[in-house]
Amino acid sequence: MFGKRHVLSMREFSREEIDSVLDLAEALEPYARGGRCDVLSGKILALLFFEPSTRTRLSFETAMMRLGGKTLNLGPAEGSAIAKGESLADTIRVIGGYADALVIRHPKEGSARLAAQFSPVPVLNAGDGAGHHPTQTLLDLYTIRKESSLDDLKIALVGDLKYGRTVHSLAYALALYGADITLVSPPTLEMPGQIKADLAGKGTIVRETHDLESVIKEVDVLYVTRIQRERFPDPYEYTKVAKSYRIAPESLKGAKEGLIIMHPLPRVDEIAPEVDGTGHAVYFQQSFYGVPVRMALLKMLMGESR
Amino acid sequence: MFGKRHVLSMREFSREEIDSVLDLAEALEPYARGGRCDVLSGKILALLFFEPSTRTRLSFETAMMRLGGKTLNLGPAEGSAIAKGESLADTIRVIGGYADALVIRHPKEGSARLAAQFSPVPVLNAGDGAGHHPTQTLLDLYTIRKESSLDDLKIALVGDLKYGRTVHSLAYALALYGADITLVSPPTLEMPGQIKADLAGKGTIVRETHDLESVIKEVDVLYVTRIQRERFPDPYEYTKVAKSYRIAPESLKGAKEGLIIMHPLPRVDEIAPEVDGTGHAVYFQQSFYGVPVRMALLKMLMGESR
Amino acid sequence: MFGKRHVLSMREFSREEIDSVLDLAEALEPYARGGRCDVLSGKILALLFFEPSTRTRLSFETAMMRLGGKTLNLGPAEGSAIAKGESLADTIRVIGGYADALVIRHPKEGSARLAAQFSPVPVLNAGDGAGHHPTQTLLDLYTIRKESSLDDLKIALVGDLKYGRTVHSLAYALALYGADITLVSPPTLEMPGQIKADLAGKGTIVRETHDLESVIKEVDVLYVTRIQRERFPDPYEYTKVAKSYRIAPESLKGAKEGLIIMHPLPRVDEIAPEVDGTGHAVYFQQSFYGVPVRMALLKMLMGESR
Repeated sequence: MFGKRHVLSMREFSREEIDSVLDLAEALEPYARGGRCDVLSGKILALLFFEPSTRTRLSFETAMMRLGGKTLNLGPAEGSAIAKGESLADTIRVIGGYADALVIRHPKEGSARLAAQFSPVPVLNAGDGAGHHPTQTLLDLYTIRKESSLDDLKIALVGDLKYGRTVHSLAYALALYGADITLVSPPTLEMPGQIKADLAGKGTIVRETHDLESVIKEVDVLYVTRIQRERFPDPYEYTKVAKSYRIAPESLKGAKEGLIIMHPLPRVDEIAPEVDGTGHAVYFQQSFYGVPVRMALLKMLMGESR
Repeated sequence: MFGKRHVLSMREFSREEIDSVLDLAEALEPYARGGRCDVLSGKILALLFFEPSTRTRLSFETAMMRLGGKTLNLGPAEGSAIAKGESLADTIRVIGGYADALVIRHPKEGSARLAAQFSPVPVLNAGDGAGHHPTQTLLDLYTIRKESSLDDLKIALVGDLKYGRTVHSLAYALALYGADITLVSPPTLEMPGQIKADLAGKGTIVRETHDLESVIKEVDVLYVTRIQRERFPDPYEYTKVAKSYRIAPESLKGAKEGLIIMHPLPRVDEIAPEVDGTGHAVYFQQSFYGVPVRMALLKMLMGESR
Repeated sequence: MFGKRHVLSMREFSREEIDSVLDLAEALEPYARGGRCDVLSGKILALLFFEPSTRTRLSFETAMMRLGGKTLNLGPAEGSAIAKGESLADTIRVIGGYADALVIRHPKEGSARLAAQFSPVPVLNAGDGAGHHPTQTLLDLYTIRKESSLDDLKIALVGDLKYGRTVHSLAYALALYGADITLVSPPTLEMPGQIKADLAGKGTIVRETHDLESVIKEVDVLYVTRIQRERFPDPYEYTKVAKSYRIAPESLKGAKEGLIIMHPLPRVDEIAPEVDGTGHAVYFQQSFYGVPVRMALLKMLMGESR
């Protein structure tokens, strides 16, 4: 069912494989909510975070603990001390001797693949620079499936579509499900042409606009990402853009009743706190869904019956 | 028996509720000493320490582990990075999705109450600024009950009574037990008038003195706290005061045989190491008693039969 | 079988005691590889690392987890904050109240012995300054026993033999097994005379040379250690020495078929990566063997049947 030894990139997942992960996540969700489960009892997951990413780390730790397993932590300060003293390959071989699987987060693209090459145990990529972060995409897909639907989906990706690793990876995955995608970004932060061409090549309907208002009424999912101040040479320009892409209760007039609003978090000003109380806001559920999705992957890679 | 959803402040505890915590702590003490216990197996306690407090953190972690549970840690460095990126409310909602209860330590008064407002799971306050630190008071009461008696208690609170959150909270709690309290401090570090008025209003006998020597012979419990050098403009003044409030074996001549000496630790010079070997010193037991007391609260908030 | 309460120094171990540790490590090795084991379920090991040593910490944590136990961590930053506020004796008494055993790593020689004096629970020394690091020596001996043989052993200790705590301690232990030892170092980094005299006094055959090439063909074990740049006043001198002691595939021509190459790791340039693929390289196994060896000690100190 799941032939993978490592989880490095979403690009290596077929739709069938994604579905099998999401199905297992659904079966495990009651245990993510605190039900007692021992399938990975006695197993150890080592977390090698060469750069900080607190939410991702805590979500992986929770997933492992909810399956009855234990975790070993290598923090960024230790990681950088270790990196001075030896090669990444040696670190991976040493820590791979202590654990049953490794989660790696690293500022340099390609690090997870290098780790997988030397590791005696499965490697999960928790983000490597501008590269991949497959578990984020899987939890996004799980959220859509649970809170809306992956079939006949109309989704708007909103915000910084140029630099955002998250939306690039999500867009490729949505193409496997035949989604109808609207790209909404400021002119300077549009989705790269290569990705748009790839999506079109797979038969995906892709529209592009700078005007958020016109889109909200039409879609099932609004996937909002952060627009970083640093991307704009002029602070005035940033403020104008940030304001026009901000979601507030009044932005949602005329939206479909079942519209869901997603955000990979942390949010700063992209979504007003007043939206939290509406039925549209699912970003805290989305964050929680990282737990059952990561449980599914951990069980697939370390469980007895694999 | 225990209707609380959160543990934020001692001021919210009735005498009956305190007694029920202390009774359960007593029942759990054998497990605090290493007996095998699984009542919180499968449960996760997240520790959010936005400022360091190593002893409190380790004591909570031990308590959770002794009940068979697991712990997630957010350290001060991560905490401050997270605080830059998002509101405390968002952090609490995200991490509240990973755990079955949260322990929060924060430099700002009122943080624990704010956290409780947004958390999907129970919150325990492990100290918020000059505010509350209820588990310290509960372990102090437990120590008195175990090593002396809460009935007809004569206690002296010694040291910095002006700024010491610990002694303020303990004094209010002792008033519930009708204790006879003597306040012993330098003139510049007396207990605030409001607290003294509150205690008197509850019918508590409160005496005040600057002279430690006269008090030692009369009391059952000597609760010693640290006098900080920073509180004195003149280093000479500090040295004089620190010396006159220092407990040494010779200070204890004429003390009751059953006198116990408590200290919230860490101590610096307030108690001479030579006192450690006398039967009066109970401060290391007191530190240990934090484990069964915190176990009691964790079981009450997360146990199945609540 | 194992009368020790603490593990502080290899000098306190008889050959019979070492053998009993290695025998138990061998019995536990399948569990070090992920088999389910609960002998220390409910027990807590506190790790007090007053200086960083990531591999040692992770190895101890893994060992404890593989036995079903849990771990408490005090990191270097917390450790130094605590050290400012109170004496090591007080810290040990407090944390000794939370755990069933303590592992201590400290920059000052003699710290572990001081800790043992005040601790209510067993103490394991994980390295104290230029002092002892007994678990490293035990895992070195285990590696030799598993991958070569402790009987009639011919071993070369290579590199910095002057400052290297690891090789000093190993040399004394090998003397108990009647090993034939060749010391290979640059002239400025020779083994201290006192140690050579001690070894000779125990009847050990000790040869000394500066020429690595002549030795490789004769020995069963090549134990390589790092030569630090800081030991040389002249960078040119360092480069020359480092080059002449570097192990590469061509250095191994004429070596015994069963030759094993060990290294305490991390390595920098002492062993070429091309050596990793040869059957001689056992340094990653050696690193892994730290787990069963530490499991054996933890079980001996905390297990029920002791």
